[in-house]
Amino acid sequence: MQHRLENFKQWLKDEKIEAAFINSTENVFYLTNFHTDPHERLMGLFVFPEADPFVIVPGMEARQVKDAGWNDEVIGYSDHENPWDFINEAIEKRGVKGDKVGFEAEVLTYGRSQSFLANFKQADVINVEDKLNNMRVVKDEQEIEIMRRAAEMADFGVEVGIGALKEGITEMEVLAKVEYELKKKGIREMSFSTMVLFGEKAGDPHGNPGSRRLKAGDLVLFDLGVVLEGYTSDITRTVAFKSVSDKQREIYDTVLKAELASLEASKPGNRIGDLDQIARDIITEAGYGNYFPHRIGHGLGINVHEFPSMSHLNEGILKKGMTYTIEPGIYVPEIGGVRIEDDVLITEEGYETLTKFPKELQIIE
Amino acid sequence: MQHRLENFKQWLKDEKIEAAFINSTENVFYLTNFHTDPHERLMGLFVFPEADPFVIVPGMEARQVKDAGWNDEVIGYSDHENPWDFINEAIEKRGVKGDKVGFEAEVLTYGRSQSFLANFKQADVINVEDKLNNMRVVKDEQEIEIMRRAAEMADFGVEVGIGALKEGITEMEVLAKVEYELKKKGIREMSFSTMVLFGEKAGDPHGNPGSRRLKAGDLVLFDLGVVLEGYTSDITRTVAFKSVSDKQREIYDTVLKAELASLEASKPGNRIGDLDQIARDIITEAGYGNYFPHRIGHGLGINVHEFPSMSHLNEGILKKGMTYTIEPGIYVPEIGGVRIEDDVLITEEGYETLTKFPKELQIIE
Repeated sequence: MQHRLENFKQWLKDEKIEAAFINSTENVFYLTNFHTDPHERLMGLFVFPEADPFVIVPGMEARQVKDAGWNDEVIGYSDHENPWDFINEAIEKRGVKGDKVGFEAEVLTYGRSQSFLANFKQADVINVEDKLNNMRVVKDEQEIEIMRRAAEMADFGVEVGIGALKEGITEMEVLAKVEYELKKKGIREMSFSTMVLFGEKAGDPHGNPGSRRLKAGDLVLFDLGVVLEGYTSDITRTVAFKSVSDKQREIYDTVLKAELASLEASKPGNRIGDLDQIARDIITEAGYGNYFPHRIGHGLGINVHEFPSMSHLNEGILKKGMTYTIEPGIYVPEIGGVRIEDDVLITEEGYETLTKFPKELQIIE
Repeated sequence: MQHRLENFKQWLKDEKIEAAFINSTENVFYLTNFHTDPHERLMGLFVFPEADPFVIVPGMEARQVKDAGWNDEVIGYSDHENPWDFINEAIEKRGVKGDKVGFEAEVLTYGRSQSFLANFKQADVINVEDKLNNMRVVKDEQEIEIMRRAAEMADFGVEVGIGALKEGITEMEVLAKVEYELKKKGIREMSFSTMVLFGEKAGDPHGNPGSRRLKAGDLVLFDLGVVLEGYTSDITRTVAFKSVSDKQREIYDTVLKAELASLEASKPGNRIGDLDQIARDIITEAGYGNYFPHRIGHGLGINVHEFPSMSHLNEGILKKGMTYTIEPGIYVPEIGGVRIEDDVLITEEGYETLTKFPKELQIIE
């Protein structure tokens, strides 16, 4: 973690930002290796270009910060104390003053921003989120190793879900089974609300699992992922139950072709936006352009949605160590939907999918 | 919902607040009956003492706002549009100006506050959270009916958990079974991270379920709840597995006595803080005062933690329709912990527990 913090401090110095307050669970974890969701209680990391950083947490978590490997100051406070008394004192003790300070402007609440800014009258505010998001875009070996295991768990979730399919079962029953088996393997948190959608329900990209019962001829869409050691996975697979119509097969084949083409374009030096464009062109040529209403994917890491945005507008360039999803989909109201999604890692020469579950159209008996 | 919104508008008028922006999922739901978590996308309700209110949401959710019963303006925007263009126009169209405006200061991000405040140069900012939290403290019949069903589901979760106990099973396996059965009944979301703790693990009030295996002589602590139609439940029960020591029984009896005494004091007109004090006195007299490190409970409703805070410092008075938890606990490191928690409704004459699972010490064979 130390080099990440040094990198961030150097940036503060270059930008002449005198103090930064980081309080998102994700960025505190990235910079300190300490992972917590303190709910309404205040938690955060204070970084200065010259002075020593410090972490403030509810007192009962102070030891966990040290256990995570943090060697600088940790301030714990109890429920009847005002954490800002300690923060203000720690800032003053360090002699930090400045007319330019930073925090995560789309994370920090207005109330807390006012408490922080009271230490720096009239200071300009810099949003430090983009800097941190950009630091996080390229993963190191340790992060990739964890994401690899998180993706394996996602593969397993799809396997369980397919195994649970039978005539008359409901979406929620299949979903419950998937999460049950993952929890038994020690997964405490899914990376987002698991999706299991049958038939016409999968034709709505914002559909929710419910009491729809499975019947022959349905397409079944699974979209799920886990949180493992602070990192996420995210997979989508679609299978047919008992039979598949020509129309369904055409849709499936189109999505798969688009996904494979987008994967093939995944290599260092290529333009990020092209991955969306390549898939979109294939789907449009097949006549389904209006049924692919979302971008091709999103960056993946500590957050299930992070940088880079895999939109056709993204002019950025792919680099070794980037991780993101590729997930084209076609959703036809009444008929159903198909989406195929993998977690992708950019390698030296090209790419590797971290999710490995097969993608040929399966007809489940 | 209409009377809630009128009540809030009247308050804005009384306080001379010219515009209010509400964007927490909970308070938007409370005032509009529309429930959504838009993640990073902007969603919110704008209320004015004189002009008509409006809701802004991602376009794909606009219809759901109407379906929820909202009859005023709804503005939908797409991902490539800036919602503030629409908001600023809607505010200007209403001719709203003012030097005093409000929002949820501990919810709204700094970034969004600046966008909102750009419409009201130099305006004073009022935090409207306390007003809304206080409005929500007394539940109406419809809210109570939903909470009653949410509490039934929590009872069921404990029943499932106890039914799953057997020698050698892990905490996570029991937890997985509990959530599996609840999901099969259609529950999509737990109201917080489910706790199943065995033996000495239950002796840490911040313990996490893991791979600890159950053995004879363990106390087993369950703490769980569900989200149902926007409302939460929250129950804790503790049972003994195969046998119970005199010490464990003494701890259990003390917690139960404290809980019952606190419940008995639950009636309209009584001071809220007394409920904590009564339980605390019993636990202290029994010699366990240092092992009861938290307040007696918390308000319960749309949030699993809301007003009133059931702390001994709360000078407020109990009123018919209030709902909260009573949950004394004793946690002895190495030996184990006991907590007993019910969801309580204040009635005309006294109280009713919405959670009904039995509380006599059970020794599970």
